[in-house]
Amino acid sequence: MLTGMPGALTVAIWGVGLIGGSLGLGWRAATATGDLLGQAAWPDGVGTLRILGVDRADVLSRAVARGAIDAGVSPEEAIAQAQVHVLAAPVGAILDLAEQIGPRLPPGTVVTDVGSTKVEITARWEARLAPRAAFVGGHPLFGREVSGIEAADPALAQGARWFLTPGARATESALALVEGLVRLLGARPIRTTPAEHDAAMAVISHLPQAVASALAASLAGDSALGWAGRGFRDATRLAASPAEIWLDIFRTNRRPLLAALDSFRERLDHLRRAIQEGDEAAIAGLFAQAQEAVRRAGN
Amino acid sequence: MLTGMPGALTVAIWGVGLIGGSLGLGWRAATATGDLLGQAAWPDGVGTLRILGVDRADVLSRAVARGAIDAGVSPEEAIAQAQVHVLAAPVGAILDLAEQIGPRLPPGTVVTDVGSTKVEITARWEARLAPRAAFVGGHPLFGREVSGIEAADPALAQGARWFLTPGARATESALALVEGLVRLLGARPIRTTPAEHDAAMAVISHLPQAVASALAASLAGDSALGWAGRGFRDATRLAASPAEIWLDIFRTNRRPLLAALDSFRERLDHLRRAIQEGDEAAIAGLFAQAQEAVRRAGN
Repeated sequence: MLTGMPGALTVAIWGVGLIGGSLGLGWRAATATGDLLGQAAWPDGVGTLRILGVDRADVLSRAVARGAIDAGVSPEEAIAQAQVHVLAAPVGAILDLAEQIGPRLPPGTVVTDVGSTKVEITARWEARLAPRAAFVGGHPLFGREVSGIEAADPALAQGARWFLTPGARATESALALVEGLVRLLGARPIRTTPAEHDAAMAVISHLPQAVASALAASLAGDSALGWAGRGFRDATRLAASPAEIWLDIFRTNRRPLLAALDSFRERLDHLRRAIQEGDEAAIAGLFAQAQEAVRRAGN
Repeated sequence: MLTGMPGALTVAIWGVGLIGGSLGLGWRAATATGDLLGQAAWPDGVGTLRILGVDRADVLSRAVARGAIDAGVSPEEAIAQAQVHVLAAPVGAILDLAEQIGPRLPPGTVVTDVGSTKVEITARWEARLAPRAAFVGGHPLFGREVSGIEAADPALAQGARWFLTPGARATESALALVEGLVRLLGARPIRTTPAEHDAAMAVISHLPQAVASALAASLAGDSALGWAGRGFRDATRLAASPAEIWLDIFRTNRRPLLAALDSFRERLDHLRRAIQEGDEAAIAGLFAQAQEAVRRAGN
């Protein structure tokens, strides 16, 4: 199984931007001592990690210069050399990679990803994955307003939640291996199912994004924007996110998101009616519900 | 006109909580040198300010101990002694004060307030105000998550926008006097009309509050709240605000707020339809509008 550098577990990161670059920097920092033998989850004989990157040539040379990867390689080289593939790409690209590399992976290979939705990615990879390879879906909850390898940071995953959503093609040893890699970054793995993950993200992440974008869009062109203060900026901060990422997320988590939007609209209509009718008990009741929710969310 | 301490302009702050206390601390700090003679807006002979507070007895003694006011007084003493009244109370209390003290103010008295809506307050005060007294509505854009005299801070108004909305009962000299007091705190006075102010606040403040509260309320009881991250917390931060304040604001700015809610709902329904139908051009278009709005709002 172990090819390439003797005693090294070879990890290929597909997409070496902010996320992939931060993972590479974090793993290289964690393994700088060369002493990984204490990690029970590694295959026998593993003493360190070798980090490969797959991306555009200019990105790869900047990633090598930043120390985020040991070497940039072609997809074919990554498939031949890596025991673990980490797909650090947008959801749409992760789905495409299932077609492009899924069937070609050698037996024993472990694939994980960082995509923001899990049901559709897991189904696609399970359908396309070569025999005796394993897929363990993942979703780290970290990020930044900025993107690109230049913004990568070895400490970005430190303390972050990292969902792992093993399905039918995840073996116990593959899951343990991925958990070991997550822990090596100081992140906190949380096991759940793809469906539970997507339902939770619909309400705590995808709904707030849709609401913040609609809120900001409803004020486009309003001259009062120049007077906006901190409250408005907090409520609409998410609306600065790039559309490309969200098109993928909305497309691959449609049904849970529509349900969350309908539940929100029901509360909004309730509040609107209460304001119109001067029903102060109803307004106060909704505020109390809201305060309880933000308290539970750690605000 | 000048009664009380010779050479002092006497200012009565009605409500010595976070806002009123911060104003008192700020004015006392700014006048500690006793040299206000350079302020062209003061009546002849004014060399300093004397700050009175009107509130519950226990609040007044804590305000004196904190140095926010020179003395706590009764409403009758404030009416008799102060040339300027600053109503640092919730909107509903400011409306009630129009009935209670408006008709009893001596000629030459100047009244201003810090209420979050201006049309209804201005109309009520203009109707009830004694002859030859002046009313200049105001709304400083500062605040904190905390309340009470203990949280007061002399620098809270520093750099903040402070709307002044003179109407039919505002004289030029009264407006200049209030502007002078605002500038003394390091705040930036902005002149507008009550109606323009309320329309602007409906979209940049009252709508985001209603949306944040409805968003948080729609998740009440959802077990996914425990996984909420920074994005959710930003989008719902406003929902922690106390209902009491917002009942007043919603009641006194109903029509502009309902119009803002309808415009938001139109955008939200547009986005929901686009998500349901997979209309990615429509989603991307709305995101572009939203990004432009948050950029203009200074995000």
